[in-house]
Order: sequence, then structure tokens, then C-alpha cells
Amino acid sequence: MAKLVETSPTFTVALDAMGGDYGPEETVAGGVQAAREQGVGVVLVGDETKIHEELAKLQLDGLPVYVEASHGIIEETDHPLQAIREKPTASIVEATKLVRTGRTQAVVSMGSTGGAMATSSLILGLVEGMERPALGGPILGQLSSAVILDLGSNVDCRPSQLLGFAAIGTAFARKIQHIENPRIALLSVGAEEGKGNRQVREAYSLFQENLQNFVGNIEGVDIFHDKADVIVCDGFVGNILLKFAEGLGMKLIASLPALLESAMPRESILKLGEGLLSGTNVAETLGGAPLFGVKGVSIVGHGRSRAPNIASAVHMAKRVWDSGMNDAVEKELSALHQKVANPYG
Amino acid sequence: MAKLVETSPTFTVALDAMGGDYGPEETVAGGVQAAREQGVGVVLVGDETKIHEELAKLQLDGLPVYVEASHGIIEETDHPLQAIREKPTASIVEATKLVRTGRTQAVVSMGSTGGAMATSSLILGLVEGMERPALGGPILGQLSSAVILDLGSNVDCRPSQLLGFAAIGTAFARKIQHIENPRIALLSVGAEEGKGNRQVREAYSLFQENLQNFVGNIEGVDIFHDKADVIVCDGFVGNILLKFAEGLGMKLIASLPALLESAMPRESILKLGEGLLSGTNVAETLGGAPLFGVKGVSIVGHGRSRAPNIASAVHMAKRVWDSGMNDAVEKELSALHQKVANPYG
Repeated sequence: MAKLVETSPTFTVALDAMGGDYGPEETVAGGVQAAREQGVGVVLVGDETKIHEELAKLQLDGLPVYVEASHGIIEETDHPLQAIREKPTASIVEATKLVRTGRTQAVVSMGSTGGAMATSSLILGLVEGMERPALGGPILGQLSSAVILDLGSNVDCRPSQLLGFAAIGTAFARKIQHIENPRIALLSVGAEEGKGNRQVREAYSLFQENLQNFVGNIEGVDIFHDKADVIVCDGFVGNILLKFAEGLGMKLIASLPALLESAMPRESILKLGEGLLSGTNVAETLGGAPLFGVKGVSIVGHGRSRAPNIASAVHMAKRVWDSGMNDAVEKELSALHQKVANPYG
Repeated sequence: MAKLVETSPTFTVALDAMGGDYGPEETVAGGVQAAREQGVGVVLVGDETKIHEELAKLQLDGLPVYVEASHGIIEETDHPLQAIREKPTASIVEATKLVRTGRTQAVVSMGSTGGAMATSSLILGLVEGMERPALGGPILGQLSSAVILDLGSNVDCRPSQLLGFAAIGTAFARKIQHIENPRIALLSVGAEEGKGNRQVREAYSLFQENLQNFVGNIEGVDIFHDKADVIVCDGFVGNILLKFAEGLGMKLIASLPALLESAMPRESILKLGEGLLSGTNVAETLGGAPLFGVKGVSIVGHGRSRAPNIASAVHMAKRVWDSGMNDAVEKELSALHQKVANPYG
């Protein structure tokens, strides 16, 4: 990877080639697809032999695709921090180091979310006030463009943390979705103030005091009624919702053939299923979600991602980088930090 | 309603004719449908004049349908306890009194869930150890028959309350669904012990110690993978899921015409939508859900219920009554109560 910085395009991404259920086959293909379609540089980080085997199957045509050797993989089943100690040259670790040293502008991984979060936190560092990165984004494709966070990294949240998520979501909606004044809501079991669990009831007044665009509580059904641009919940609720939507979508699609077999050909049913799935499967739509609160662009994607999804994740990395969203997040959080000094500490 | 007990069928239900978005029009029609199709007695409780206006539109043919006068309605927006004091002869109150005095075997309402819960708790009483009724049942129609509870009545739960929900769900699965040894799971963000928020982590060991059929944690996606028959969560999570599923289903169906317009006629699209909806809309499938932990059969249905859904809710009341489920719930909770004396009180 000599002279990478000198010869690469403006934006180069470090792609964890070993991550995901279908790495390196799909990750390498996805990286090459991104380089071809988006004009970005891609550094494939992983087992050199395996990566070159995959590259040999593809047309490279002088694309800015590079290979960086690493050894070992942090698995879903590993304890993240322990795994980083025991596998200091694992693919996600080496990929993240490329951002730290300025050789790439972002890191993208379809591997263990915990592994990516721990690596990004340790190597790139966290914005002041964040205990761990937050995960979020629009999870419902065409069905709802609302940014929902946190999606699983913070399961027991103080109200002040929820306030931080609101600030992060606002920066995302502004910079990535170009919504000037995103409306912010708390996800709850009733619209009125006073509805909800203790966490949400306490957060309500904190949101009212600190967020000009707070529109109050919304219920689960309102996610589909365009009542808010940023929907805040703790990672326990968010993760259950995310995976519930995925399961519900897949199950609905599986039920289509029985409902439709007499009405249309099998091929059309599959196509319809894909159309519906794009609304319920984050891997299909977004490609990947940014780790918010990390000092650097770090994108995690779904383990089941295929090449086109991986190319989408690279595209998300580039959008986050181009938009200056990370700076905006840092600014928003720092402003909040000065106003609200950990009120429920 | 003179001589009701002497002349009525074995099972008679008190139906809150004023409840729901479409009462008394749909409630009266639904009650009459239930009497005709299920051979049950139905006492319509509400504004006599309005009920008789609706009855005049229908063929009664000597069906065991009766009218009981009441005055006032407890609305969704009312504070339940306050409303019971201020409207002591409201339809849900009078309907519930009919169960208390033994004139009917069950009460069914499509009105304010909070109103029905408060009325049932005050007039019928709660099983020892319950602070308020729990709500639950299979919410996903053909997509998953798993019983999920609580669905919204208990938003901040101690682990011992979750254990109570497991016992209730077990009784429901056994008596209503005829599953001999229902598998019980905790809804969480990862399958392994130790995954989840504090509440779930604490409940895990309590479940392990006290429930022979505890299969561990499941994730949101596993609800669709038949990993458990009874899925326990607190009412905050359960209610958000319930309404999210409803919203997602409606939104998916709304997107069908655009996806299908060239492939099939409009009528077929609507039919397909109905087929899909039956999997995501509790009002369409279950009709109503029992209030668990109440000393008597009390069913609450969705406000948007139409006549056929209301007839289904009456049918659910009859099934709960016939099955002896309430006695089983009381027995299970009392057994737990002796083993676990409020360990996290």
C-alpha cells in the first residue's frame, strides 16, 4: 500500500474485508463496486491471500483498490475489549488504525458491531460526554425516513444521554438528510406529557427545556405518520424495534407466495418481496450506520450484507465525510454539555 | 333486562355498547352477530335510545340480546380513576357491575383501555400480587402465535413482575392455545445471559430459578422464528412493539398499489392487503385481549374495531371463561408468590 495517500482519490475508505457473514467474497466485490461506481479509493484490510483470490475474479481496470494485510478476525461471539487485546492485528483493528494515521478518511465494517465500536472508541476516541458510540439512522427505507437512535449500543440510558442522542440525530438529519429544522420526538406509549416509563417522563422536561424543535412524545404507530424527523429511544427499545421490523418484513414476504400464487408469476412475487423488504431491512437500504460520537468516520453494516449493500455502506461513509456531520455532532454535543452538566449524573 | 339469568344461555357477556371509535353502531351490530353465530347471550350496556335505534336496523329473530341503560362514557382522554368517580353510571362501569353481580360471565369493551382496567380492578378486584391488570396475547396473527406480555399496562416493571407475566402467559398458552409446556423467553437485545438492560439481566436469574420452561433471552427477530410460546417484556417495550407492528403493517399495505398496479387488478391488491394486515393488526385477528390478573373475565378490544372484530372479542371472552384460564392464572401467581416473596420489592 505504498504511497497510498499520494496516489489515491480525495476520499479513501478502509474496508474490513474479513467482516460480515460473506467476507471476504462479498466485501471484496462490494469494495471494488464502490471504487468503480463512486470514484472512491478502497483499502481492503484482511488476509492477503484470500483477498487476492477474490480480486483475481474481478475486473479491476486500474481502480484505486489496495490491500493491507491483517491477521485474525474479531467475531460476534468475542468479548470486544478482550478480543482487541488478544488479536491486536485483527482486520477491524488494522482498518481503524488507517483512519487514525490519516491514510484513509473512514473505516467500514460488516463484522461484529461490538468489535467495531470498541475499536473505534479506543483507536479514534470519543467526543466529550459520550460513554460509548451511539448507533442510529433511518431504519425503515421508503416506509419512514425518520432517524431513530439509539439502536442498541446504549441499553440503560440516563435522560441526559437521550438528550445527547437528540443532538446527534439533529446533526444527522441536517447534514445528511438536509432537513433544516428537524423535529425531535421521544418514543413512548402515549403522546401526552406524563405518558411513558420513568426514563421518558424525566427526559420529557429536559427535552422541553433544551430543544427548540421538541414535538413531544410519539407512539410506535406514529413512526409511520411523519410526526418527527428524529426519534429518540434508548438502545434496548431501539434494537428490539430494529430487529422486530426486520423479522416482520421477512415473515411477511415469506407469506406472499401463498397469498399470491394464483394471481401472479413467481418472479413477480419475488420482485414484490424485494420492494417490500427495502422498507424493513436496514442492510438493504442504508448499507451501514455511522457510529455517532466517534472522532472519525466509522460505519458498521449488517452482517448479512452482500456486495451492493457494502458499496452502499462505503457511500454512507463518503456522505458522512463530505457533509462534515462529525464536526456538527461534536459541536451540538459540546453546546449541550455546557447547558446541561449531566443533570441526572 | 328482567329475568335475564333465568332465560339467558349459559354464557352471557356484558358489552360496552358506547365504547370504541364506532360505538354504538358497530358494537350493537357486533353484539348481535356474536349472539347469532356463537349462541351466547349479549347485554348491550349504554344509551338506551341509541342502542334501540341500532337494534331496529337489525334482524333479531328472538336472539338473547338485552339492553341495560347507562349514562356517560369514559373517554380515552379521561383520567380513568377520576372519570369513574365523576361518571359512576358510565357504560363500562355498569357493564362491569353486571359481572360483579353474577348477571353476566364477562365484560367486553372497545373503549378506553385505561378506563376498562381501572373499572375491572376496582369492581372485580385483582389477584394477590398484581398491582394492575396485565395485557397480552398473540399480537401477530398468522405471523406468530407467541403470547407477548405486558403490552402496555405496566411500564416500569420489577423483575418479579416480569416473572408474574411469565406465569400468566403460561396459563394463557396452556388453557387457550392448548400448549402443554409453553416455552418462556425474555425479550432482549441478545440471546446470551448478560445481554440486555438491567431489568432483563436481573430477571434472567430469577426466571432461571423459578421457571422450568425458561429458554433464555430472544431478540426482536426471533419473535418470528418460533423460539418461544410466551415472550415477556415490560409494558413500555410491548406497547411500542404492538403499535409499531400495526403502523408498519398499514404502511406496507398502503405501498402495495404502487408496487403492484401493473401486475394485478385493484380488487386483488385490496384482498392481498387484508391478508397481510391480518398478521399485523391485533384488532383484525384477536378481537380483544383479556385483562390478566382481574378476578373475572374482562376483555378489551381495539378502539378501531368493527362489528366482526367485536364478535371476535366476545368469542375470546367465551374462550377465556370456558377454559378456566382465570383460575389457572390465580393458581400460577399464588404458587409463584409463595416461592418468590417480592425479591426485588
